[in-house]
Amino acid sequence: MLSTTAEVRVRYSETDAMAVAYHANYLPWFEVARTALFNEIGLSYKKLDDAGFLLPVLEAGLRYLAPARYDDVLAVTASVLEIPRVRIRVDYEIRLDEKVITTGHTVHAFMNRTGQAIKPPKEVIAGFQLAFAKSAAVAATTATQP
Amino acid sequence: MLSTTAEVRVRYSETDAMAVAYHANYLPWFEVARTALFNEIGLSYKKLDDAGFLLPVLEAGLRYLAPARYDDVLAVTASVLEIPRVRIRVDYEIRLDEKVITTGHTVHAFMNRTGQAIKPPKEVIAGFQLAFAKSAAVAATTATQP
Amino acid sequence: MLSTTAEVRVRYSETDAMAVAYHANYLPWFEVARTALFNEIGLSYKKLDDAGFLLPVLEAGLRYLAPARYDDVLAVTASVLEIPRVRIRVDYEIRLDEKVITTGHTVHAFMNRTGQAIKPPKEVIAGFQLAFAKSAAVAATTATQP
Amino acid sequence: MLSTTAEVRVRYSETDAMAVAYHANYLPWFEVARTALFNEIGLSYKKLDDAGFLLPVLEAGLRYLAPARYDDVLAVTASVLEIPRVRIRVDYEIRLDEKVITTGHTVHAFMNRTGQAIKPPKEVIAGFQLAFAKSAAVAATTATQP
Repeated sequence: MLSTTAEVRVRYSETDAMAVAYHANYLPWFEVARTALFNEIGLSYKKLDDAGFLLPVLEAGLRYLAPARYDDVLAVTASVLEIPRVRIRVDYEIRLDEKVITTGHTVHAFMNRTGQAIKPPKEVIAGFQLAFAKSAAVAATTATQP
Repeated sequence: MLSTTAEVRVRYSETDAMAVAYHANYLPWFEVARTALFNEIGLSYKKLDDAGFLLPVLEAGLRYLAPARYDDVLAVTASVLEIPRVRIRVDYEIRLDEKVITTGHTVHAFMNRTGQAIKPPKEVIAGFQLAFAKSAAVAATTATQP
Repeated sequence: MLSTTAEVRVRYSETDAMAVAYHANYLPWFEVARTALFNEIGLSYKKLDDAGFLLPVLEAGLRYLAPARYDDVLAVTASVLEIPRVRIRVDYEIRLDEKVITTGHTVHAFMNRTGQAIKPPKEVIAGFQLAFAKSAAVAATTATQP
Repeated sequence: MLSTTAEVRVRYSETDAMAVAYHANYLPWFEVARTALFNEIGLSYKKLDDAGFLLPVLEAGLRYLAPARYDDVLAVTASVLEIPRVRIRVDYEIRLDEKVITTGHTVHAFMNRTGQAIKPPKEVIAGFQLAFAKSAAVAATTATQP
């Protein structure tokens, strides 16, 4: 499993007339964490974009458990549970003061510049495999520590 | 079933660097249609709000089948399939030139001003029952026409 | 003078925790009216874009005289006072129930795909000249009517 | 002079079809820096809000000198040049790699919960006076160092 947590501070522009964060704004927050995760394993959107690949969103789901308010500092965790084959699924949790206030997921496809769905490029699969291997190695080391 | 369709023209502000509508912006479009549906059956957000009721979103789901682009005119349909008891579920379809490009749903709870979940107020349930009855009557009339 | 008015209904997503429309959201509303004006004189963004021209914003100014609230229906007027030479200036007024609640302006440059500032293409200048001539003719006719 | 710089990373949601940050999104970035400045001098929006004061925007102006792109890290500086009497003016500069890409300003009024314009509360003026005095003392110390 790959996992990254990014910090997001709720902006006034993201609140609505109920004085809580508007529900659509969680998707950009998910993206902030997703971007951080991809950057971390060396597969930045910019690099993918330069190589002619796009990663459109096919599906998104969100569960709102508790509200977020102006100036709250949120911890947004993005996780990839399995090495992607054709599509990439990312799962999310948002925490406020250690409490999970939102969960969600997105599913992405690879697309070339002409808008056709394609298999993920080899370097992307290789990047994920390497990252998963490293992550497993770290987990193993940690597990065997006295 | 209750159903309303609202028209939305994609704004430049709603596009992203892929030159398509950014995926979070579909949720406000869903809301445009949801607002129209609630207004139509006499249960405007404003009226609910004045009466001390809020309708926070508990859950949202979206499937993106084809992109929308700048200045596209979209038909956003919001439907309530069942008379709500505790929660309200709304289903959505977005069409571009008759073709469905997005489907989705949202689930809402009733809440009072202090943030507690409450049962839907009687007048809301009554409003839905009346609207469903009217809708069924119209359907029946249409069905029996030669 | 060229002038077009577009209707905008305030979305819940556009409100903030003060229960009024958030001040940044007026710029996309200006753009809705600007798009309508350009479409009207046959110079749609899409056409310009297809021809390889971009119209980035160089400058924006806004004065907020009174708030707009959820579900308010606003009349957004975009006006071009002079035939553009190098830059295009557009002025705006937003009205709620006939009362002006916001004024503003934007200034735009023409740019080619490689990001260089260029003179407005001939067909654009011609399009504006034609539109101004028509507009003046209509004004003259109206003025001479008894 | 009071001055604070906040860091903002351009989100994908903030880009538009020209593949640059959409011009309305600079206003929320200004607000991120303004919030940081107010927090720093002990006058957080939350505190003001709890005390029944609102700070609506009366005026905004922006000059876009160069574009910002996805994942760019921007330094957003908010400055208050004079101790506010009735209105508060904040000036902004956004830098990308040390280069100023945007300048702007906003003007704010104090308002009570019923929407009436009021004089800034005494504790706010006192807060600003104290912050300006501290800032001047720091500047003096720095200036007299050999």
